[in-house]
Amino acid sequence: MKVSLVKNILEANERIAQQNRGLFDEKGLMVVNLMSSPGAGKTSLLEKTIDALKDEVRIGVIEGDVQSSQDAERIARKNIPVVQINTGGACHLDGNMIRETFDQFDFDGLDLLVVENVGNLVCPAEFQVGEDFKAMILSVPEGDDKPAKYPLMFHESSVLLINKIDLLPFLDVSVDNIRKEALNVNPSLIIFEISCKTGQGLDAWFDWLKARIADQNRR
Amino acid sequence: MKVSLVKNILEANERIAQQNRGLFDEKGLMVVNLMSSPGAGKTSLLEKTIDALKDEVRIGVIEGDVQSSQDAERIARKNIPVVQINTGGACHLDGNMIRETFDQFDFDGLDLLVVENVGNLVCPAEFQVGEDFKAMILSVPEGDDKPAKYPLMFHESSVLLINKIDLLPFLDVSVDNIRKEALNVNPSLIIFEISCKTGQGLDAWFDWLKARIADQNRR
Repeated sequence: MKVSLVKNILEANERIAQQNRGLFDEKGLMVVNLMSSPGAGKTSLLEKTIDALKDEVRIGVIEGDVQSSQDAERIARKNIPVVQINTGGACHLDGNMIRETFDQFDFDGLDLLVVENVGNLVCPAEFQVGEDFKAMILSVPEGDDKPAKYPLMFHESSVLLINKIDLLPFLDVSVDNIRKEALNVNPSLIIFEISCKTGQGLDAWFDWLKARIADQNRR
Repeated sequence: MKVSLVKNILEANERIAQQNRGLFDEKGLMVVNLMSSPGAGKTSLLEKTIDALKDEVRIGVIEGDVQSSQDAERIARKNIPVVQINTGGACHLDGNMIRETFDQFDFDGLDLLVVENVGNLVCPAEFQVGEDFKAMILSVPEGDDKPAKYPLMFHESSVLLINKIDLLPFLDVSVDNIRKEALNVNPSLIIFEISCKTGQGLDAWFDWLKARIADQNRR
């Protein structure tokens, strides 16, 4: 009973996510579902990405948080369209929450929509929102045992950004171990090692993302 | 419909948690529900606490993880009773999962049971397991905006341990801000600033915990 109920919720979400996906395709919009633990650096990565790409790529953002509008306020300072979703307790975004923001965006004026999910390494991985791909951040202070302990998130993501590498000298954490464990869960993960604080490694991410958007536009 | 369903799940859990609580009271056992984001330092704090208290306090541990038994193996090296719960996807522990471990413990031989919850700053706060109190860890790399963004966890916890303070010189994070924001959500929070790596601040936590257990035993 409980299992079938959960299955129904996931199936209902899947239908709505596919409707979202249809609209995004029609508009030629690339959508990234950005996920991580709390405080791993989702909003910082977004700020850096907007700064680097905004002259070439028209970006919109959906900010998901249990509560508060701090992240949307940070993004709004970049003068790009942003909508805050407060889940009011729910631990992830779903397709319906995303759909409810549609009337607040002009999708014809956008190339890229980034959905910043609730900070949570478990639940968001279960729910599609209509994205082209999921990207996740693991910050090095979280430790190199996370892929084995939270495998679904690593399994569902296409991109892993290993953030805060400026802190490595002060931690007993190995990026090689993170890579090995993450690829063990998902051998096709595309991995970037970055520091949103120092900027190290970010160019490779920007270049990859721009190429991916250009590729989509050619189709 | 959805709301009443969620309410039913929480109410059913509440009943089981109260039955657990009744058994723990009968056995004179103090139970701590330990929660945090992934990688904030729950298992490290447990290791340090066991090392410091095990000559005076008989400790048992329940390890909750979505997957893997790495944490239980770490704790087992301390030669204390430990049971691993793998939730197989679920993002929190509940009363029933705890009850299912009972036949693996001799509660008469224990003073303190620590339940290490799944690493998640959202969902575990909603579920009682029969604990005396909830303790949470926030590690400073997660940032000082977390109490406003994940208020329920801070609201439900009696104790906040601010961990990894050895990293403060390398972060743009203020412990004063964490304290202020956390107390804003929950003015009765008892706060410890600690580093499980250097040991800084841990003595105050050990002393507080020992006093609390002694207090319970006197009742």
